[in-house]
Amino acid sequence: MTALQPLIDAIVSDMRAMEDKGKVANYIPPLANISPGKFGLAVVLADGQVLTGGDAEEPFSIQSISKVFTLTLALGTAGDQLWRRVGREPSGSAFNSIVQLENEKGVPRNPFINAGAIVVSDMILARHEPREAIGQVLRLVRDLVGEDSIAIDEHVARAELETGFRNEALANYTKAFGNLHNDVDRVLGVYSHCCSIAMSCRQLALAGRYLMLGGLNPETGRQVLSAHRTRRINALMMTCGHYDNSGEFAFRVGLPGKSGVGGGILVVAPGVASIAVWAPGLNAQGNSLLGSIALERLAAGAGWSVFEGG
Amino acid sequence: MTALQPLIDAIVSDMRAMEDKGKVANYIPPLANISPGKFGLAVVLADGQVLTGGDAEEPFSIQSISKVFTLTLALGTAGDQLWRRVGREPSGSAFNSIVQLENEKGVPRNPFINAGAIVVSDMILARHEPREAIGQVLRLVRDLVGEDSIAIDEHVARAELETGFRNEALANYTKAFGNLHNDVDRVLGVYSHCCSIAMSCRQLALAGRYLMLGGLNPETGRQVLSAHRTRRINALMMTCGHYDNSGEFAFRVGLPGKSGVGGGILVVAPGVASIAVWAPGLNAQGNSLLGSIALERLAAGAGWSVFEGG
Amino acid sequence: MTALQPLIDAIVSDMRAMEDKGKVANYIPPLANISPGKFGLAVVLADGQVLTGGDAEEPFSIQSISKVFTLTLALGTAGDQLWRRVGREPSGSAFNSIVQLENEKGVPRNPFINAGAIVVSDMILARHEPREAIGQVLRLVRDLVGEDSIAIDEHVARAELETGFRNEALANYTKAFGNLHNDVDRVLGVYSHCCSIAMSCRQLALAGRYLMLGGLNPETGRQVLSAHRTRRINALMMTCGHYDNSGEFAFRVGLPGKSGVGGGILVVAPGVASIAVWAPGLNAQGNSLLGSIALERLAAGAGWSVFEGG
Amino acid sequence: MTALQPLIDAIVSDMRAMEDKGKVANYIPPLANISPGKFGLAVVLADGQVLTGGDAEEPFSIQSISKVFTLTLALGTAGDQLWRRVGREPSGSAFNSIVQLENEKGVPRNPFINAGAIVVSDMILARHEPREAIGQVLRLVRDLVGEDSIAIDEHVARAELETGFRNEALANYTKAFGNLHNDVDRVLGVYSHCCSIAMSCRQLALAGRYLMLGGLNPETGRQVLSAHRTRRINALMMTCGHYDNSGEFAFRVGLPGKSGVGGGILVVAPGVASIAVWAPGLNAQGNSLLGSIALERLAAGAGWSVFEGG
Repeated sequence: MTALQPLIDAIVSDMRAMEDKGKVANYIPPLANISPGKFGLAVVLADGQVLTGGDAEEPFSIQSISKVFTLTLALGTAGDQLWRRVGREPSGSAFNSIVQLENEKGVPRNPFINAGAIVVSDMILARHEPREAIGQVLRLVRDLVGEDSIAIDEHVARAELETGFRNEALANYTKAFGNLHNDVDRVLGVYSHCCSIAMSCRQLALAGRYLMLGGLNPETGRQVLSAHRTRRINALMMTCGHYDNSGEFAFRVGLPGKSGVGGGILVVAPGVASIAVWAPGLNAQGNSLLGSIALERLAAGAGWSVFEGG
Repeated sequence: MTALQPLIDAIVSDMRAMEDKGKVANYIPPLANISPGKFGLAVVLADGQVLTGGDAEEPFSIQSISKVFTLTLALGTAGDQLWRRVGREPSGSAFNSIVQLENEKGVPRNPFINAGAIVVSDMILARHEPREAIGQVLRLVRDLVGEDSIAIDEHVARAELETGFRNEALANYTKAFGNLHNDVDRVLGVYSHCCSIAMSCRQLALAGRYLMLGGLNPETGRQVLSAHRTRRINALMMTCGHYDNSGEFAFRVGLPGKSGVGGGILVVAPGVASIAVWAPGLNAQGNSLLGSIALERLAAGAGWSVFEGG
Repeated sequence: MTALQPLIDAIVSDMRAMEDKGKVANYIPPLANISPGKFGLAVVLADGQVLTGGDAEEPFSIQSISKVFTLTLALGTAGDQLWRRVGREPSGSAFNSIVQLENEKGVPRNPFINAGAIVVSDMILARHEPREAIGQVLRLVRDLVGEDSIAIDEHVARAELETGFRNEALANYTKAFGNLHNDVDRVLGVYSHCCSIAMSCRQLALAGRYLMLGGLNPETGRQVLSAHRTRRINALMMTCGHYDNSGEFAFRVGLPGKSGVGGGILVVAPGVASIAVWAPGLNAQGNSLLGSIALERLAAGAGWSVFEGG
Repeated sequence: MTALQPLIDAIVSDMRAMEDKGKVANYIPPLANISPGKFGLAVVLADGQVLTGGDAEEPFSIQSISKVFTLTLALGTAGDQLWRRVGREPSGSAFNSIVQLENEKGVPRNPFINAGAIVVSDMILARHEPREAIGQVLRLVRDLVGEDSIAIDEHVARAELETGFRNEALANYTKAFGNLHNDVDRVLGVYSHCCSIAMSCRQLALAGRYLMLGGLNPETGRQVLSAHRTRRINALMMTCGHYDNSGEFAFRVGLPGKSGVGGGILVVAPGVASIAVWAPGLNAQGNSLLGSIALERLAAGAGWSVFEGG
């Protein structure tokens, strides 16, 4: 473990040298301009130690990683009732697939595909105004990091709303089955703003500490979630955190993680570390290409796989 | 941990008292006659200690749990070439679904659904005679347990071949895409015989030790598989070990496992324990109903979830 | 043929006596209140003779039957370019299925399922204002009937827009694939208003004359469409006019037809008759239950099946 | 109509000059060697007149066109009970798709896709020996043509059985759902032999006369089928006769037809003509490429579309 910083440095240097950096998401215009050369990595250990490498201080759009935080918030208020409206199985399909929704009558397979997170956003919205619901998510994230400066990139949020036809389709489709209680526009407003939270790797790794610590936010000393529910979020990140690439990620990295099309991945080594990586170029399934490779290296090098036993 | 035997005893007693025991698989005639009241549990710890409860000495048909052993054998010979012919993603479908095969041109989603294990059986068969290939699997299992008495129930094997129309369909379908190199009958002969291995919970938990110990067979002191590949089998058991119920199992139990329609489940707490449970009644997805509940209790009680961090 | 009026009268009387009248569509509120006891039938022969029975003068919401008229209009302007954006195969799925759209990248299977008609509406809209596009469809229908009184039921149109979440989903989905050029709201405005045209059986049968007469509107003496394209619309009505019940309708009735969830069906016996029936109760696939039975009786009694050869 | 022979001659000459002749089916070895330059056309009119062009006397493998004859035979014995085990809707999928079977629990969409014809073969087999069942089909075809020389190409039948893994899969799959009563091997034996009947265009057009004449076999003066059921077979040929190209064929040709991968198509103009065409090169959906074009020309030139009304 003393060799962790050199391992991080070696990974950063190797990733920067890689020729194939994947393809930056181009369907959300403001994200399309990010340089594919960016690479950041941050690790927070259980004892509070923070190690970083590369562009670990540069904020990026966390996108679908926000699904972890909205699920955390919704579980806190709706409790296990939530699982009546969202499943917890891997979908076997792309992140924005609508096929499963038709076959399963408007109940999304899990909260980490778009349709599932849209239903979770509907629960957070409940009887609040969108502005207030978004505020709650932002407050949760700021509390987890311990920094009030974290903000939403309104430019990205607006671009997503303007071009998010598949999300519009998914939301309307769940609504057609009665699984969306608020207006589609209000729900997608909440959803898109949460996706547009900007954080650095360091901030994101800090935000993920409660997942490593059984639900405890070390910043405030308070439980964000029970240990029981925290374990379950980790389990969902393992089986569903990378869309139709989740099996591959578990196979290669062996840690629960959640990716976003902004190129970030939040990963948890339960009891040991909270890790965030950022590399904007994506693989075919929409997960950070270099981020996944870096995490495989890190988990193997540090011996952090939860499947390790030897 | 000192309280492990009382925990096992409490679970056995509670499971025996449960009214809804699920439905015993009825499509393989010899399995249909097993009493749903049977319940066995066995735990082998990393230090070699063996704890059991209930019908832990009674042999049952391991069925799809054999997919773990055939995969282990095939990885040993074919190596990573294996993954060209079988995927490693959860299928999102039932264990005997054929839909995915059509969409993905004869490449099964993972080695733990029937189609995937049929392709793995084809690899084991290679240029051997079926009898020889089956012999190799049996030898592996006997070596893992350290008991030469373990045998195949020929009665079950024959019944499976006679009624296995869906497996015939899956095998022919992969062959139509060129992903089966041997005759369908020979491949299904190997597949069905491996499924028909009979073991007790105690034996099965012993057989699973290498998965807890990074690939080491403590019986022989030899590596059955590299630590690296062993981790990966554990990962596959986590994401794909329970068909379209894999997410739920990870969510509730938090350990890699593989179930069989005979009512058995083999579970691994990496570095800590190898666990086998048997209760013949199944849930809607074809996994042992009481077995799953028992494992949730055991993992929670012993604090073994890999997602635990608090 | 001299016995046609008695045949119509017998059918009306038998249909009124039927106990199972199907289920009136309940997802469009204003349609839910229509009495399931209504039954109307109108036949216009090639020589211009008009025969009616039952509630043949009462206007009803033509709903998806409007898809025939919008397709006619779009073919007139876009020509065969239209087929680059819409297919002409039966979908094998329900009228509002979205699965096919995902698999075929936003190109609807045919112009008679909702997604297809939405794309056709987008073509009619082109660079016009919605009001103008709707006006063109209404003008076409009025010209075909020869009555200027035909109107849109604004109450129905508004209700459809407010509750049409699946159509919103379909429109957004095609737009996500670039197969919708105008704003979703404008396109659905056109689509819903066309569906909300109200006509009686007599008027609808008059409107269908051009389909029987090779494209000629006998009202004006002008070709609405070439004989060639008219044959093709008839062919599409045969293979795709009743959603996933099209095969059954062809099998039983043997004539091209297009149904609507308002309970109307427009049917063509090429060269012989244009027929409209109305019975608000629907079968499981969303087609008029009694309407289908009545048409089977009429076609058999009059010997009008295009598959007749004896 | 006096110009029919010149029209046929012009079509033959034009088709022979076409450069793109499609791709000869290569998955049944003996069919792969047929010259793509072959082209035959035969028309039998209601008055008995026979007109031919090109290679109209050369026998070819009728393949799936046999599905019309086996359906005719099965309807004669099983009657409408047949429709409990086979649907009558277009499948919207390829001829050998298995996806629909899983969703609809082993009931094939219609009798003209492979799975449907396999179930029909099972009905014909009933309690007979395969040899006898095949003999009945052959007798029907010989009676329809009035020539006893028509035979099965055993070489083709054997090749089909040896390479027909998808048909093996389909048969086993329907059997898994209980929708196949006989042994898979026996059923596929019947199925493959019927597909391997060899006929010339002239013979095939003669065999199709009963479909034009309301079920009457003019050769024997006996009804092969009631007028009612004959209409219905024609309807099925219209909606399902060309797999996922059926809509296109109806759109372009406007006549009921059934194609085979041997490159033949049997087409009916009810009351007017029975037509057979043969051109071995196929389009992407497995239907004769030049055959379809030739029929479009013929139907348009002769004014035979059933959708004609002008």
